[in-house]
Amino acid sequence: MEVHILKRNNNSLSTPLILINFKTYSEALGEKAVRLAKIAETVSEKTGKCIAVAPQYTDIRRIARETKLPVFAQHIDPIEPGAHTGKILPESIKEAGAIGTLINHSERQMKISDIERCVLSAKSLGLLTVVCAGTANISMATASLNPDIVAIEPPELIGKGKAVSKESPEIIADTIALVRQINKTITILCGAGITSGEDVKAAINLGTEGVLLASGVVKASDQEAVLLDLAIQI
Amino acid sequence: MEVHILKRNNNSLSTPLILINFKTYSEALGEKAVRLAKIAETVSEKTGKCIAVAPQYTDIRRIARETKLPVFAQHIDPIEPGAHTGKILPESIKEAGAIGTLINHSERQMKISDIERCVLSAKSLGLLTVVCAGTANISMATASLNPDIVAIEPPELIGKGKAVSKESPEIIADTIALVRQINKTITILCGAGITSGEDVKAAINLGTEGVLLASGVVKASDQEAVLLDLAIQI
Amino acid sequence: MEVHILKRNNNSLSTPLILINFKTYSEALGEKAVRLAKIAETVSEKTGKCIAVAPQYTDIRRIARETKLPVFAQHIDPIEPGAHTGKILPESIKEAGAIGTLINHSERQMKISDIERCVLSAKSLGLLTVVCAGTANISMATASLNPDIVAIEPPELIGKGKAVSKESPEIIADTIALVRQINKTITILCGAGITSGEDVKAAINLGTEGVLLASGVVKASDQEAVLLDLAIQI
Amino acid sequence: MEVHILKRNNNSLSTPLILINFKTYSEALGEKAVRLAKIAETVSEKTGKCIAVAPQYTDIRRIARETKLPVFAQHIDPIEPGAHTGKILPESIKEAGAIGTLINHSERQMKISDIERCVLSAKSLGLLTVVCAGTANISMATASLNPDIVAIEPPELIGKGKAVSKESPEIIADTIALVRQINKTITILCGAGITSGEDVKAAINLGTEGVLLASGVVKASDQEAVLLDLAIQI
Repeated sequence: MEVHILKRNNNSLSTPLILINFKTYSEALGEKAVRLAKIAETVSEKTGKCIAVAPQYTDIRRIARETKLPVFAQHIDPIEPGAHTGKILPESIKEAGAIGTLINHSERQMKISDIERCVLSAKSLGLLTVVCAGTANISMATASLNPDIVAIEPPELIGKGKAVSKESPEIIADTIALVRQINKTITILCGAGITSGEDVKAAINLGTEGVLLASGVVKASDQEAVLLDLAIQI
Repeated sequence: MEVHILKRNNNSLSTPLILINFKTYSEALGEKAVRLAKIAETVSEKTGKCIAVAPQYTDIRRIARETKLPVFAQHIDPIEPGAHTGKILPESIKEAGAIGTLINHSERQMKISDIERCVLSAKSLGLLTVVCAGTANISMATASLNPDIVAIEPPELIGKGKAVSKESPEIIADTIALVRQINKTITILCGAGITSGEDVKAAINLGTEGVLLASGVVKASDQEAVLLDLAIQI
Repeated sequence: MEVHILKRNNNSLSTPLILINFKTYSEALGEKAVRLAKIAETVSEKTGKCIAVAPQYTDIRRIARETKLPVFAQHIDPIEPGAHTGKILPESIKEAGAIGTLINHSERQMKISDIERCVLSAKSLGLLTVVCAGTANISMATASLNPDIVAIEPPELIGKGKAVSKESPEIIADTIALVRQINKTITILCGAGITSGEDVKAAINLGTEGVLLASGVVKASDQEAVLLDLAIQI
Repeated sequence: MEVHILKRNNNSLSTPLILINFKTYSEALGEKAVRLAKIAETVSEKTGKCIAVAPQYTDIRRIARETKLPVFAQHIDPIEPGAHTGKILPESIKEAGAIGTLINHSERQMKISDIERCVLSAKSLGLLTVVCAGTANISMATASLNPDIVAIEPPELIGKGKAVSKESPEIIADTIALVRQINKTITILCGAGITSGEDVKAAINLGTEGVLLASGVVKASDQEAVLLDLAIQI
């Protein structure tokens, strides 16, 4: 597969990409988050494949400092610095060392105008954006807002252990067709149910440039073995 | 004024209390958050008064490590560890070093059942809870949910530079009367527009045990001078 | 059981009360809503018991016109007349003939400040308010906001076919005890899983003044028989 | 201008179209809503132009019965018949006589997946859909979800008395260009600040097929005169 480099200011990612969402799993919190990130770093170094991580907010700084991995936030709020309480200021995740953020994950969906606002504010700060979508048409819709990456994740398959790339290849094919109608270069990831190198291979064969996954790695009894399998096959 | 100690597990606070909400102000982010926290620590040591801070999520760990101040989160979500993305897991703010959290700040309001869930989960983790309320009746309502602290903050006065304790003393008096009908011991703070030692004194004279404030300190040209004035008068 | 009359302006209800939430069931929409309301009216006339109904917004006017039943909205929004789109203006449900409204039903929960705002605006319009709560402490909290009626409905029992009054009598007992600490006269209903006269009797014996129910009547194969059983036993 | 007919089942609209959102204005509630609808009907008959209205939920049935105007709801919720309280069931607005609905108005925005769900459920019921968008890119995004009509309404101009078609013609031009990239036939309306025939003419000249407006008509001292001016110029 061809390698692409996504750059925004000094931040860069390359495809094919494995992006691990740590969610709010206790298996990926605090010390355990750092340990998992270090495993990912080792696998990335061994295989030469790009692995990025999206830990909880409180762990962004440590992981950005203690590893060389590209770190993403799981969400940002559509706000500017000022009188907001309890919200995720885009500047705060950048200051802590993130190079980008997920937006509109199926577990943290937003109004469409807020997605646009977040994409624009992330761009103005030099942060990379991964906008998540649950259907092919929504993928096309989010591509209209010009994020760096669109990630198609059918919510009905998330965390179910059946890979989208094998269970619903038509959703991925439709997504690619619709997104490419309006944008030839945007990076397309897929996710939901990805747990093995085979799932990843199927995803790449369908034309995506990587995968977004969570429980498949985070909750694996041997996280390193799973990641290695994914990275070798991607 | 009598000193009270609030304890939950190994966490403790004492009243009279000054609790500074850093909000998402750029003047209280990253390095600037640490610097402000260190100023607060110095003032606390000089005056013997308890000062707590509520920084952004990404700064909790640093401030908890680099100062001895009690650190609060600005918000937690009503969730347990698991498949949630972009949310604030109560366990995550505890792991990062917070000893408590604001709940239902006027800029981050919640459904009443979520407030109850957050109070219960914080308690089960040994975190102190400060539930915010905008009116006297809502203060009474939130006191029914048994948080450690109720903070009355009329939203119409937040960030306006007119102290609630001088502009609307009757709201504070009503709050104390209504809350005391159902709970004799819960700690009551007030906030909104507090910027000076005089405002604090008025708040204490009305029967509260401390203040919650933000811009009055965060955006002050001389943060230390303001904090010193507050701490001496409290 | 003693009969109480709740009055606000010209609107009145009496207890013991059966309040039927039509939800968005297709069995209680349009013509079917009118038919069910007429059945309720017949049962009310036969038994002398007060039965109120909460149909969908679009059916309020017809039912208010075609029956003599007290009609409630299922929700109002915390807004005043003006530039709001798609919201439920309290004035609109009154104009259509409703005499009151549910607020904070477990399927339509609100921020606590919005509950207060809705109670106040309903009162200023002469509308009766039924604030729903899922736990005993939340019942107490909502009673602090001075609605006319508090309805305790543990969400885990809604639509499950097991009556709260028999499955969880302690929740009702706790609710009554906590609410009475702060308000001696507010009307207390209970709901969730109520389907028979026996369930109603148990609810009344625990000290409530009526029931809030939905599927037990709406989805019954013989709606009149169920309602008659409920009305005779209340 | 060419006339187009939008059809879905037995429902039809024609362009150029004037769509009046009654919002929650007291000037367009109950009797006043019916009166305004009758004025619109008269103007429509006199001029041969299509005028549609979007009243409050409680007024849908009366206006659908007492006039021949196409009636829209202001919003629907992404739900199916069942146990939902206080929500807007798409079936309920159809049963009351609406032929379509606004979706995602700037005052009632939704998650993108909910917009898709509402468009699909409206279509399956034979209801026409008008999805609102605040920017050109969001218009393109919503067009990806295949509604019948996209309405571009920059929120910063709503209710300000300056017509989008004269103040920000470039937003309309960009919208048309972006939407046409992906859909050649979808109907495009514009709105915000429209109050006169001149504003409408400017909108049509830019390539839209009609206007969405509210206060310009609803709050006019002479509603008929304003509507006549709009209808003659469209």
